[in-house]
Amino acid sequence: MKQIKLNVKTKTQKYPIIIGSNLTPKVLKIVKQNSINFNQCLLIVDKNVPKKFVSNIKKSLKQKKVYVYFFNANEVNKNFNKINKILEILLSKNFSREDCVISVGGGITGDVSGFVASLFKRGLKFINLPTTLLSQVDSSIGGKTGVNSKYGKNLIGSFYQPNLVITDTEFLKSLPKREIICGYGEVLKHSLINDKKFFIFLNKNIKKVLTLSSPFIEKAIYESCKIKRSVVEKDEKEKGLRKILNFGHTFAHAYEASLGYSKKLNHGEAVILGIKTALNFSLKNSFLKKNEYQLIDDHIKNAGLPSSLNKFFSLKDLSKILSFMIKDKKNNSSKISLVLLKKIGSPIFNQKYTRKNINIFLKNYLRN
Amino acid sequence: MKQIKLNVKTKTQKYPIIIGSNLTPKVLKIVKQNSINFNQCLLIVDKNVPKKFVSNIKKSLKQKKVYVYFFNANEVNKNFNKINKILEILLSKNFSREDCVISVGGGITGDVSGFVASLFKRGLKFINLPTTLLSQVDSSIGGKTGVNSKYGKNLIGSFYQPNLVITDTEFLKSLPKREIICGYGEVLKHSLINDKKFFIFLNKNIKKVLTLSSPFIEKAIYESCKIKRSVVEKDEKEKGLRKILNFGHTFAHAYEASLGYSKKLNHGEAVILGIKTALNFSLKNSFLKKNEYQLIDDHIKNAGLPSSLNKFFSLKDLSKILSFMIKDKKNNSSKISLVLLKKIGSPIFNQKYTRKNINIFLKNYLRN
Repeated sequence: MKQIKLNVKTKTQKYPIIIGSNLTPKVLKIVKQNSINFNQCLLIVDKNVPKKFVSNIKKSLKQKKVYVYFFNANEVNKNFNKINKILEILLSKNFSREDCVISVGGGITGDVSGFVASLFKRGLKFINLPTTLLSQVDSSIGGKTGVNSKYGKNLIGSFYQPNLVITDTEFLKSLPKREIICGYGEVLKHSLINDKKFFIFLNKNIKKVLTLSSPFIEKAIYESCKIKRSVVEKDEKEKGLRKILNFGHTFAHAYEASLGYSKKLNHGEAVILGIKTALNFSLKNSFLKKNEYQLIDDHIKNAGLPSSLNKFFSLKDLSKILSFMIKDKKNNSSKISLVLLKKIGSPIFNQKYTRKNINIFLKNYLRN
Repeated sequence: MKQIKLNVKTKTQKYPIIIGSNLTPKVLKIVKQNSINFNQCLLIVDKNVPKKFVSNIKKSLKQKKVYVYFFNANEVNKNFNKINKILEILLSKNFSREDCVISVGGGITGDVSGFVASLFKRGLKFINLPTTLLSQVDSSIGGKTGVNSKYGKNLIGSFYQPNLVITDTEFLKSLPKREIICGYGEVLKHSLINDKKFFIFLNKNIKKVLTLSSPFIEKAIYESCKIKRSVVEKDEKEKGLRKILNFGHTFAHAYEASLGYSKKLNHGEAVILGIKTALNFSLKNSFLKKNEYQLIDDHIKNAGLPSSLNKFFSLKDLSKILSFMIKDKKNNSSKISLVLLKKIGSPIFNQKYTRKNINIFLKNYLRN
């Protein structure tokens, strides 16, 4: 399949996303085609990325001075001290603003790399090669960067757009099934908040998408990126519309945080559980009709996505979950702001609920 | 004298600078007049700011929840760990993006506060009350924030525009003469790179400006802000034009760094020495004519500004100074990029010199 190019244009930056298969040997060619120039670069590589990809990229960039930093990408290492450490590396190599940071990894690696790029001398060049489905369809678009704190996820960060995103489906083939399922949560979310036609496509082709069959996986990535792009272009700094992308995420962040970001429940799985919760909340509060709820619920089951909250939590976890929801950075007040669903393709946002409202709902929801 | 309002408009933000005297009791009024809203705020206050100002501000904001963090503002404390510490305070008080950080201090406090504001949940509201002449005429405009590293000054940071700047000349009266002299360096720089008429005004009224006589000091601040604004509006992210503001600064940064940011030579004094050096370099390289050089040189002497580099450095410091110049973040290559002066009001930038060029020049310059 040939490369697809999707241009993203925000107030602060214009950049292309290149989607295709087996792109790592062509990195320099793609960089040049997109008029990006640098003398030296630091590859920040998730240490779980298979070595053949790293060696392809290094070979492709052999005209440049290339440093590699292997990053043990997990939520615990996604912290402020790690940022400082990588900044020190760039300083010690005398990087200039015209040099480049290249991320090779999933969302965590991308968030850390983008954050570093935004802070170093107030911003150097940044190229992202997302290697997981989750990062390809979601976190690589939109310029959110950041790290976790003991108070919660992504509470410290910046908005910083990359100069180029190279989305290579070849990476996905090296991933365990669980990783694909996780990324699929965001694909599903994009269809739910924006495009019923896309949801119907997914519902029909779910097996082919999840087994990474071409051109179904490419189509799913492309449509997902397009939806995210349209939202981000309209609201780069998350003043309003962009909040719809948090459909399911207020719950999801609290779930992850409550488990201390344990491997038992990774980010993508938390998002799927969060989407399920938000759907149920939408149903119970008479926003979403029963038949559409059922359609999505069946889809989640057929796809084999995790969906039982009570596999992970019991009533005794409730107050912890609620505290994390109150601390969510999208809340402007003591109320909890949720994105809910009216119909497939039609979200509503800024619905405010008290801690008590959510408490009653979650208590019931956990009991079922 | 009545308040003057100067609107700054960049790609990412539009905000007013309010210039006047005795504004601290009116902070809330000014905040409301400019349609800024928040529930709670953290005042980050340089601990050297006289208490009466802090109490005025707190009294004015009594409708709001106000926390105060007293900051021991110096170049050593302007570091990444301090940022982390203040972020933790905001997190522990459950600040939201709709809340506010208010800086009350000079450039260091403003840089730290703005950096914190930019990073917390990817950006909360930011109001700056610059208390020194240097910060009022320079660092409070343009959205540069950041901290130092052991490799140099301001190497880690972000671009982040405030929501409001309140420039109160009352603060200046509490400052030692040395602080006023320092700030004056930037006023002089603005006139040199942009506006000969303003330079002539300064040359004529230097005593009145330096003794803070009204309306001369207000006029000097206003004209300075206007020049900085016009440059920043055209080039927020320092891609080109904005580099002219670094007239004298490539030398200045290296001077400060070479002395380990000691109190012997503060930032403003380093800038004045840097301007003097850049003027001499411009003369020696036949950009600037002898008569204009003499005019500025006389002005610097009459104003009682520090001007003898060899009071601070000797030949044995040369290699240290040069190493810091090579590391300057505006350099895209191994060459050193300088802003020079053709005429009063007409700078030229992107003049590239080798380490050897600068070495020869500085060796001679230090001998005189």
